[in-house]
Amino acid sequence: MATWSAPGKVFLFGEHAVVYGKPGIAMAIKPRVMVTVRESRYHQKPNSPYIAECFRLMDVKGSVYVRSQLPSSSGLGSSAAVTVATLCAINDEFGLEKNRAEIADLAHQVEMSAQNGRASATDTYVSAFGGMVLVRGNEKRRLLPPQNFSLVIGNTLVSHSTSEMVGKVADLRKHSPDIANPILDSIAAITMRAMYNLDNQKELGSLMNMNHALLDALGVGHPVLSKLVLAARSAGAHGAKTTGAGGGGCMYAICSKSSRNRVAGAIEGCDARAIITTIDTEGARKEKDE
Amino acid sequence: MATWSAPGKVFLFGEHAVVYGKPGIAMAIKPRVMVTVRESRYHQKPNSPYIAECFRLMDVKGSVYVRSQLPSSSGLGSSAAVTVATLCAINDEFGLEKNRAEIADLAHQVEMSAQNGRASATDTYVSAFGGMVLVRGNEKRRLLPPQNFSLVIGNTLVSHSTSEMVGKVADLRKHSPDIANPILDSIAAITMRAMYNLDNQKELGSLMNMNHALLDALGVGHPVLSKLVLAARSAGAHGAKTTGAGGGGCMYAICSKSSRNRVAGAIEGCDARAIITTIDTEGARKEKDE
Repeated sequence: MATWSAPGKVFLFGEHAVVYGKPGIAMAIKPRVMVTVRESRYHQKPNSPYIAECFRLMDVKGSVYVRSQLPSSSGLGSSAAVTVATLCAINDEFGLEKNRAEIADLAHQVEMSAQNGRASATDTYVSAFGGMVLVRGNEKRRLLPPQNFSLVIGNTLVSHSTSEMVGKVADLRKHSPDIANPILDSIAAITMRAMYNLDNQKELGSLMNMNHALLDALGVGHPVLSKLVLAARSAGAHGAKTTGAGGGGCMYAICSKSSRNRVAGAIEGCDARAIITTIDTEGARKEKDE
Repeated sequence: MATWSAPGKVFLFGEHAVVYGKPGIAMAIKPRVMVTVRESRYHQKPNSPYIAECFRLMDVKGSVYVRSQLPSSSGLGSSAAVTVATLCAINDEFGLEKNRAEIADLAHQVEMSAQNGRASATDTYVSAFGGMVLVRGNEKRRLLPPQNFSLVIGNTLVSHSTSEMVGKVADLRKHSPDIANPILDSIAAITMRAMYNLDNQKELGSLMNMNHALLDALGVGHPVLSKLVLAARSAGAHGAKTTGAGGGGCMYAICSKSSRNRVAGAIEGCDARAIITTIDTEGARKEKDE
């Protein structure tokens, strides 16, 4: 029996623009998915297509037990975390000796087949390695994570479709390139500016606010996201923005330690779910068997 | 005794971008300022610096009586309307025989001296001529106004400073041209697209929503403006955006005749003032003396 866990992620800057080769910054967050795998002669068919694909790809049979601190389908990378943790647990239980980079690659393959060939490698990479990552095209660069990086995530509980939102931006770009392309350029400039200001939370907050407005301009906003962003800002956050595909899902705010409870309260006051968290620097890790 | 009136205006698209030579669309609205001028030997010093400047420039003496349907300092061009109506009434009372274009030029001169050399010629031009105008640099082009153009204006009652907001955008442009300039380019593309879609209110609404988000991205938003815009959209408006300098002041929504009361109600429900109005095609006009 082997138990492994892997963290979720938020996109800090540049989502949607990354689809067009622009830079983006993603970060692993503390909430994790824990997966226990036990070798068994009779393969118990898993409910999750991700887990089923992990067993198929690794060509082993066993039973699985999953516990998650991450809400699913909310843009926090829970499917990537499930996949990475399952692959690590299989790797350990069956003595397959894959390293972290191989696990990250395999996890991306699993997501590709479970999502019909459409999956970004960012979620699985960040979940496997932890920390903060600059993504551009196929290139990934690990960033030195800032100190005291307090994050409040607000989950709108509004379901959304990543592929629908990506399609919406693609449509705007096709029919109105003169409107959409400058917006993507501005987002790219904001992301690069953010990369050099990770330790300046006030500057980072104002860049977040701009990036949020530009996501709205691309048409991937949602009234509840706007509401949570406004609530977080008026509760004292340095900045607040949609994270991920938009049209629902989550937003996040950065704030000082002293104001994070107030920001979380403001979000909960809008009938949404708040998660106070910070950067996870470990990535996938072995847990004690229970 | 002569009584003249002149209409207020809203900026439909492109505010702030016009400062940098990009196109903008402004429109005269029904609410008016009425000004009665009576020749008198003893000049009664007016309270308004605009009116005082009108008398000084025209070199006459008289008494003035002003009634306004426009809230002042809210970005609806009330000072331009006061100026245009006063000049027209002076022109009439004293038989000076200036035409409408001359009145518009004189009104701009009055605004320039009353505002220390900083005044756009758009407000006075639109108030003098009425209708809808495309502005770019010093060029002004009258547009064929659309039919059934129902507008709901929401006044946040939050005071704002146009010059402060213009300065904010200038700062962003100076320190972050790679972020600000693409946003201004995108606003310009939206304005041109709007000009060719004035009769397509759904398309116009979606362009308004994008332009609003880009104004937010430039940093001239305000939480109350966001609130009114969201309220108007969820009450069924085709689109809603800040009009004018931002940081307070007004927003407007376009909507069908059947939904305009609902949109106005949603705005009033946010403790703001709503004005249901439409395009004014007359500009300055002579009123019956009471």
